[in-house]
Amino acid sequence: MGHLSTSLTHTHARTHAHAHTQYLLPAKNGEEQTMQFLLEVVEILTNYIRKTFDRSTKVLDFHHPHQLLEGMEGFNLELSDQPESLEQILVDCRDTLKYGVRTGHPRFFNQLSTGLDIVGLAGEWLTSTANTNMFTYEIAPVFVLMEQLTLKKMREIIGWPDGEGDGIFSPGGAISNLYSVMIARYKFFPEVKTKGMAAAPRMVLFTSEHSHYSIKKTSAALGIGTENLILLNTDERGRVIPADLEAKVIEAKQKGYVPMFVNATAGTTVYGAFDPINEIADICEKYNMWLHVDGAWGGGLLMSRKHRHKLNGVERANSVTWNPHKMMGVPLQCSAILCTNNHKSGLLQGCNSMCAGYLFQPDKQYDVTYDTGDKAIQCGRHVDIFKFWLMWKAKGTIGFEQHIDKCLDLSAHLYNKIKNREGFEMPQHTNVCFWYIPPSLRGLPDGEERRDRLHKVAPKIKALMMESGTTMVGYQPQGDKVNFFRMVISNPAATRSDIDFLIEEIERLGHDL
Amino acid sequence: MGHLSTSLTHTHARTHAHAHTQYLLPAKNGEEQTMQFLLEVVEILTNYIRKTFDRSTKVLDFHHPHQLLEGMEGFNLELSDQPESLEQILVDCRDTLKYGVRTGHPRFFNQLSTGLDIVGLAGEWLTSTANTNMFTYEIAPVFVLMEQLTLKKMREIIGWPDGEGDGIFSPGGAISNLYSVMIARYKFFPEVKTKGMAAAPRMVLFTSEHSHYSIKKTSAALGIGTENLILLNTDERGRVIPADLEAKVIEAKQKGYVPMFVNATAGTTVYGAFDPINEIADICEKYNMWLHVDGAWGGGLLMSRKHRHKLNGVERANSVTWNPHKMMGVPLQCSAILCTNNHKSGLLQGCNSMCAGYLFQPDKQYDVTYDTGDKAIQCGRHVDIFKFWLMWKAKGTIGFEQHIDKCLDLSAHLYNKIKNREGFEMPQHTNVCFWYIPPSLRGLPDGEERRDRLHKVAPKIKALMMESGTTMVGYQPQGDKVNFFRMVISNPAATRSDIDFLIEEIERLGHDL
Repeated sequence: MGHLSTSLTHTHARTHAHAHTQYLLPAKNGEEQTMQFLLEVVEILTNYIRKTFDRSTKVLDFHHPHQLLEGMEGFNLELSDQPESLEQILVDCRDTLKYGVRTGHPRFFNQLSTGLDIVGLAGEWLTSTANTNMFTYEIAPVFVLMEQLTLKKMREIIGWPDGEGDGIFSPGGAISNLYSVMIARYKFFPEVKTKGMAAAPRMVLFTSEHSHYSIKKTSAALGIGTENLILLNTDERGRVIPADLEAKVIEAKQKGYVPMFVNATAGTTVYGAFDPINEIADICEKYNMWLHVDGAWGGGLLMSRKHRHKLNGVERANSVTWNPHKMMGVPLQCSAILCTNNHKSGLLQGCNSMCAGYLFQPDKQYDVTYDTGDKAIQCGRHVDIFKFWLMWKAKGTIGFEQHIDKCLDLSAHLYNKIKNREGFEMPQHTNVCFWYIPPSLRGLPDGEERRDRLHKVAPKIKALMMESGTTMVGYQPQGDKVNFFRMVISNPAATRSDIDFLIEEIERLGHDL
Repeated sequence: MGHLSTSLTHTHARTHAHAHTQYLLPAKNGEEQTMQFLLEVVEILTNYIRKTFDRSTKVLDFHHPHQLLEGMEGFNLELSDQPESLEQILVDCRDTLKYGVRTGHPRFFNQLSTGLDIVGLAGEWLTSTANTNMFTYEIAPVFVLMEQLTLKKMREIIGWPDGEGDGIFSPGGAISNLYSVMIARYKFFPEVKTKGMAAAPRMVLFTSEHSHYSIKKTSAALGIGTENLILLNTDERGRVIPADLEAKVIEAKQKGYVPMFVNATAGTTVYGAFDPINEIADICEKYNMWLHVDGAWGGGLLMSRKHRHKLNGVERANSVTWNPHKMMGVPLQCSAILCTNNHKSGLLQGCNSMCAGYLFQPDKQYDVTYDTGDKAIQCGRHVDIFKFWLMWKAKGTIGFEQHIDKCLDLSAHLYNKIKNREGFEMPQHTNVCFWYIPPSLRGLPDGEERRDRLHKVAPKIKALMMESGTTMVGYQPQGDKVNFFRMVISNPAATRSDIDFLIEEIERLGHDL
């Protein structure tokens, strides 16, 4: 490879300097130039990948928006009328990566989605090359079948009998959650599809005060209104209190509203709390409400025999959101909405179908039930399945289990390291959430001044961290708690030494605040 | 490259047969194996690309769902508990491509999105490698700025003063259209966000009977109801009749409804018709309605000085959907919703923001107006911008113009070839829509029998076409017209000879029907 790289770079200097995109395929005799261009791009990408996993490289090289907009040396974001040479295009590729963030770096912990799985990446490269669309079997035969088989497997793992039910991959957990409310509404009030919300009574939804903000976005979008989303109180660990749900359901009924939908979160965004699904399911059954489990973050635990008990009762849900692109380490994006099927033609189909004649012709030569497009609110739908299918093939179910178990082990390691460490305090520990208290604050009594000053610590440390580029972790306030760090571990590249590094780095950067 | 391929394949046989995914990075000493695995994947992909542009290869190798599900030789879609070897993973990649459809083949005309742009593809490979998310500047600094600059450029091309306004890339035209209705509703009835549709009067929307079905899906999803979407009559070429719009607006007002939103289509899905935007804009101004232009298909014409007149008046729209992944040949997916900004905080922001504290911290060290995530109904958002930005760099505005002009020239060529050809009839010609009349039907008088038999011709030819794998083109009925072919040209690889081939292939396959 070393020799190859050198010779490629050398040839490139000779041939690309004045070559433009019109010399590439489909141009006549464009094959050689195309192959060479693509290999040079791959060389840039593989160099980037190598560095991503190298702890001696930075996670990011931070610049402010105005700096990048003014143009870094040789890197100009402006678009122009005239084409650039292929040589410049390669430079642009290199610079785009240079000024970006290495989300696969072993010390990147900033988001629920981290890491760079090599097989998943290969899957994405193939997906882009196939460049097709999920709406019909006609133009995505293999991908449509992979999606169907994978969704069935996921439903089996959830625990629905024989994996029966329906589902679709959607562009992210927020859209998956939106689907859950749509199909619930369609189940109870199908006439809303044609007549609008005016045809239904005032429906109310319930979700934890700690749940993801997409439930609120959905209430606004679907014409339900955020005021008709009722927030549930949580216990000290961020889990919904079932008695509070029941009290609020009764209160809503007394006001003449129709309690329709409950979202139980399996792995809240900040604390990583798991709502008690079985107790919530009892209440849903009693009052005839739809039970959705938002397992965007925590759904991955279903792959682990050791940890899946945290989702006990999930098999009683009517629908489940599960994002393999989070804890399972699949490249972005890959989110599934899964549901049971107690409706004659399928709820997704019933809710969304419009039977467009130009796509879903009934007189095709194959079994058109494999045309899944009319289940979606989208028309075209990106192929999100292949990378996930390929990773599953390569790891086996058992490989995902090992990955999940390892992530939770690392969380436990972090928890144990900081629980008695001077200068750290924790409000919660499934996602490990914690404050770093600089020495200057340690003597202060609890009160307004300490809170105000502590609130500013995490943002300051985070800013210093991004400027030094050594690691990244998220922070936020929650309820009455001032800014704290939220440590989430989904990165397959992370080891105990990276966790230890994070702690020491926070101490180093925060010591003198 | 030839030598390299051989030597790679040779090495691979030795090393991958028993290697599994755990030998790849981040595994210790995994670098060499990782690079080798990725290069072998790239070899599979580049071979596929080579064949894609080779007219002697088939467009597809058709198999029915049950055949693929039963398993082709060596290709088994089932997922299992145990991992597969990397060697098998490479075989799976090869087979996935083998049984798929070559959407970049010069003779693939089946969808509005066709072709395989090499620079766009390189952009997608880089995007997957960067594996990040558009919601914050923090983790996608370069991509966020590229999106902002590109959207501004698109707004300038639309003709909005100084390119002012707002916008976002969304997962497809259907979602972009959904955004347009959401922001219109928010403009007129902001209280719907909190109180739901109950807080608003009965609002009605207007769109062409020929418009895309996503407008109907949106009406259902947002709680407006499909019955409150009023379909407009069209002339013989599929264009909305403005007088019909005005009559229906007046009728709706007389019933006490609130006419709120008009969708004008620039390039209808089947006929490719362009609604008269200026005349529709006059009516929208008169009655204070939001004007959206759905240019998912036809928006690309804005890049052509010769053809952009078809969208005259687009600068008067309040919002525009424009899919570069269609006529501009950008890989899937790439769709923009753009809007003017006559609202203090931005309509997208106002409509969708929920200010989640864990993502959109106000106390970051950089200018947080660059965090675009709260404009979206999604939380995570795929990076759809880079491939488009890179293609624009590589082609220049002028390169897109040449591509658009070429596509329209080819359409004209097809139209001219078949307008007087025996056995062909055309209802329309922007997208070239046509019937092939087999000799056995040519003597039949117009009437029930001819209609019934003609309705079956296109599906039969299409089925034979897919089985022989030589080319692909779509068909559908429309209104009172029986099944006809719809020829859309966005494929940069297509030439006149491919158009001629299509005509002859239809004649060959349909002659004896």
